[in-house]
Amino acid sequence: MKINGQPYRTIFPDGDAVLVIDQTRLPFAFELQRLETLDDAARAIRTMVVRGAPLIGVTAAYGMALAMRADASDTGIVHAAATLAATRPTAINLRWALDRVAAALRAVPESERTAFAYGEAARIADEDVVSCRAIGEHGAAILRDIAGRKPGPVNVLTHCNAGWLATVDWGTALAPVFVAHDAGVPVHVWVEETRPRNQGAALTAFELQAHGVPHTVIADNAGGHLMQHGRVDVCIVGSDRTTSSGDVCNKIGTYLKGLAAHDNAVPFYAALPFSTIDWTLDDGVREIPIEERDGREVTHLTGRTDAGEFATVQVVSPGSPVANPAFDVTPSRLVTGIITERGVCMASPEGLLGLYPERRRAA
Amino acid sequence: MKINGQPYRTIFPDGDAVLVIDQTRLPFAFELQRLETLDDAARAIRTMVVRGAPLIGVTAAYGMALAMRADASDTGIVHAAATLAATRPTAINLRWALDRVAAALRAVPESERTAFAYGEAARIADEDVVSCRAIGEHGAAILRDIAGRKPGPVNVLTHCNAGWLATVDWGTALAPVFVAHDAGVPVHVWVEETRPRNQGAALTAFELQAHGVPHTVIADNAGGHLMQHGRVDVCIVGSDRTTSSGDVCNKIGTYLKGLAAHDNAVPFYAALPFSTIDWTLDDGVREIPIEERDGREVTHLTGRTDAGEFATVQVVSPGSPVANPAFDVTPSRLVTGIITERGVCMASPEGLLGLYPERRRAA
Repeated sequence: MKINGQPYRTIFPDGDAVLVIDQTRLPFAFELQRLETLDDAARAIRTMVVRGAPLIGVTAAYGMALAMRADASDTGIVHAAATLAATRPTAINLRWALDRVAAALRAVPESERTAFAYGEAARIADEDVVSCRAIGEHGAAILRDIAGRKPGPVNVLTHCNAGWLATVDWGTALAPVFVAHDAGVPVHVWVEETRPRNQGAALTAFELQAHGVPHTVIADNAGGHLMQHGRVDVCIVGSDRTTSSGDVCNKIGTYLKGLAAHDNAVPFYAALPFSTIDWTLDDGVREIPIEERDGREVTHLTGRTDAGEFATVQVVSPGSPVANPAFDVTPSRLVTGIITERGVCMASPEGLLGLYPERRRAA
Repeated sequence: MKINGQPYRTIFPDGDAVLVIDQTRLPFAFELQRLETLDDAARAIRTMVVRGAPLIGVTAAYGMALAMRADASDTGIVHAAATLAATRPTAINLRWALDRVAAALRAVPESERTAFAYGEAARIADEDVVSCRAIGEHGAAILRDIAGRKPGPVNVLTHCNAGWLATVDWGTALAPVFVAHDAGVPVHVWVEETRPRNQGAALTAFELQAHGVPHTVIADNAGGHLMQHGRVDVCIVGSDRTTSSGDVCNKIGTYLKGLAAHDNAVPFYAALPFSTIDWTLDDGVREIPIEERDGREVTHLTGRTDAGEFATVQVVSPGSPVANPAFDVTPSRLVTGIITERGVCMASPEGLLGLYPERRRAA
């Protein structure tokens, strides 16, 4: 996607280092951050300089390459994978990417591991772009269909940021919006601010504005009210982990929108690449570990003052304890369909296996 | 309730003026604001120096008294009531209090209207305290009952601020918590921060801390997740307007918690005085006007910097449009019961008429 006319990916190699867009500075500053070591990569993921399940996976893959420069031994592989895996417990793409790179590296002579790891990370990045573009095409068909059945723009509600900043390019939940918009389908996006961390207000709004897509930012609390009043045609969200049964784990608060969509007969889709599916899990609410993040994300907010400076302010009554679960699970019964790079399916074991028949086990 | 050991009401006369706690400065500063004219009262309501349906009603009543000092004519009554009614469109207590004071004033000679209006406002304030205390007693019985059936504290989830700061004293949704806590029932409150304006993080947390009630602040998005995992025993919210059928209009986002409570078999109560019931309305979603407030409440947040100064920061991507509906409606089907000063009833026409039989019309 373009920033001021310049095409960017969210992550790309620069010599031996890797450059990423510092997402903690958006929307007020567009800055690149240089990752040179394993620890740089781990810190970038942990502090959410990069975030979004697919982008976390790609960053972890590049983190393996950076680690190989310092220690390409088998021990080095194990240490790097463990360090990176510990950064975020919920997103499954992280583990998927680490498993893929680590397994491939073990089959390569130590002297070739660094170069191989850079190549593998680049392949994962390229595949992610292809995946996201395909998700965009499949999802855009849904938006085109809605546009054909009603006057005015298709009103899409999304939660958090599952746009191109969450991936390498295009995005997951927003890919259908970008593809439809580019094809001339009238689209308007309700952008939930997405507390805490406000990725909707900061990142999704920034992306849509940069691309010229009509949108309106709302408090997370407003989504249900808009659905009650017929002002949302479809919800599309991303996912940080999806079970084999179609339960969708995504940024905290997604479940509430699944409930409201169901209560108001608004279609609710999750858009995700295959690498987000955890085929080993069945019951998302019971089985997916939910990351508990620093309470300071709830008590404090950083933004820009009228004077143009960054400032951090406390908004919670001093001394009050806080809890900060980062994700929740929307049970498959609330999910109309799952949009992947292979098409759109029901949120069910049969639906997902229909798209991924190679996952069927012999009875 | 007490602030630093000193008992306070949220509003009280001081000579010819009226003093209110400036709720826009909490939790970081406890300051009183002096209202001397009709315009002072209207501004205090509009800018949410005072807020909460019952307190808005009492402030409007005192606003009528302040207005009478300047113009006690019949025209003066009409002008004052119209000015105050225009400040907030959703809360019904405002109109109830204005109708009561205006009707009574018209029956009084012009020369006695000012004194009468002060008296009537004081009576409404005193009645509100008695009402809220009774709501507390009735609601505390529910909490006591839950405490008898499980080990550990009763986990109450509340949205926005319906504590004593929303009323004259005691509160509505929080009155049961205060009464139960004072009676030795172990209670823990999940306090939703309540975007925008953060009344939960700023006011509810402040109140509970001042009173020593265990509590934890969470993002609004987290409430559903906690209910999915059995960490909420009961939801209690306030109401800004309640229909004769038991639909509950309250701070935006309440509906989402009604849905989550229903989905997880968590009892969901609204606590409110009789003056919050709009007997003329039946279908809350269709009929209650929803106030649309300034988008700056979404785009900007005010808090305290680490240096101890107040600062306002922008958190939404610059130039992105915003929408800011202030309330939503939770349909009666999602409401387990309504707690009023007369007891607890089903959220239904028959339930409410059972508590208020004088509202039954001859068939």
